[in-house]
Amino acid sequence: MNFPSKLIENAVNEISRLPGIGKKTALRLALHLLKQRETVSETLAHSILTLRKEVKYCKVCHNISDSEICSICTGMKRDKSLICVVEDIPDVLAIENTSQYNGLYHVLGGVISPIQGIGPDELKIESLISRINASPSDEKVEEVILALSTTMEGDTTSFYITRKLKTMGIKVSTIARGIPVGGELEYTDEVTLGRSILTRINYSAD
Amino acid sequence: MNFPSKLIENAVNEISRLPGIGKKTALRLALHLLKQRETVSETLAHSILTLRKEVKYCKVCHNISDSEICSICTGMKRDKSLICVVEDIPDVLAIENTSQYNGLYHVLGGVISPIQGIGPDELKIESLISRINASPSDEKVEEVILALSTTMEGDTTSFYITRKLKTMGIKVSTIARGIPVGGELEYTDEVTLGRSILTRINYSAD
Repeated sequence: MNFPSKLIENAVNEISRLPGIGKKTALRLALHLLKQRETVSETLAHSILTLRKEVKYCKVCHNISDSEICSICTGMKRDKSLICVVEDIPDVLAIENTSQYNGLYHVLGGVISPIQGIGPDELKIESLISRINASPSDEKVEEVILALSTTMEGDTTSFYITRKLKTMGIKVSTIARGIPVGGELEYTDEVTLGRSILTRINYSAD
Repeated sequence: MNFPSKLIENAVNEISRLPGIGKKTALRLALHLLKQRETVSETLAHSILTLRKEVKYCKVCHNISDSEICSICTGMKRDKSLICVVEDIPDVLAIENTSQYNGLYHVLGGVISPIQGIGPDELKIESLISRINASPSDEKVEEVILALSTTMEGDTTSFYITRKLKTMGIKVSTIARGIPVGGELEYTDEVTLGRSILTRINYSAD
């Protein structure tokens, strides 16, 4: 694409570096910004800059936070005996939006992936263990819920963490895998369907 | 959506103001920027700011330009007797990318739309007429090609400009409407197919 101006070419190149945004979309966004008042571009640029420069991560759970320790970790109504281990920040948001979970979180920052050169030391696994060890006796961590993706990497990470925690006498669980609510049996893949039968829930035990 | 940090909430709100980007995509983009080095956010913010602040428009054709008069208008190899009238800047880029046109352009900045309160005075129509009148005798404008969209508003604008230019003895043409190259007759809408028969091209005249 030939651009009539260096300025727009630079902007399109920079915007199209973002994931899922190609040159055409970037051009559309740039021309949109040109049609808006100058303050629109200013606040956008400012919010991107301050986000990157001033972002803090919670020292306990490694989630994004405005303070040293995030509002979930300091929450008075939170069940501090439960820790849900997730891969990344959007997962915390997704679980929080269900309003079904009242415990704490631990953001690993990724999963073990030998291909991408990510070993256990690159993740916040040691931090999870020392956090459990350091928990005060009145707020003892009793259960760790693994909520990682069911890829090869996610399963490896789950396995690794489970083995580490077992020796510590902590209960380790994983979120249920099965047919999504509203999903049809007929169109579910065999692995999911197979797992959902193996990990069936016993109604008569309630 | 509840955000763990005001900074990310602001960034997501600002990014999701862009057309076609919702809150989820905005969050994905913001988290992507957080994972990149700080210079990535800096150059992105900088390019957006400088684009909006330093952008210039060509005084002759109103296209985006780095100088007072754009490179197309000053181009030595351009046929200065032809002016192609388009609605907006992306249209210039689209026609330039075909490499089939060697004349000049004129960007109207929109089309006549009484519903949106855009009259002929809001567009660069007067500027087109004075530009034609001011053209020197060795580079006299001979033909104006209308390349506006085939909507009610586009057709109204074409009609308005045609009527203005007719009195000046300028040849006015419009780009051909018909079946796209590679398109199938069977699936073409009736209006397009009807027009393509009415405006058929006479092979025997060549």
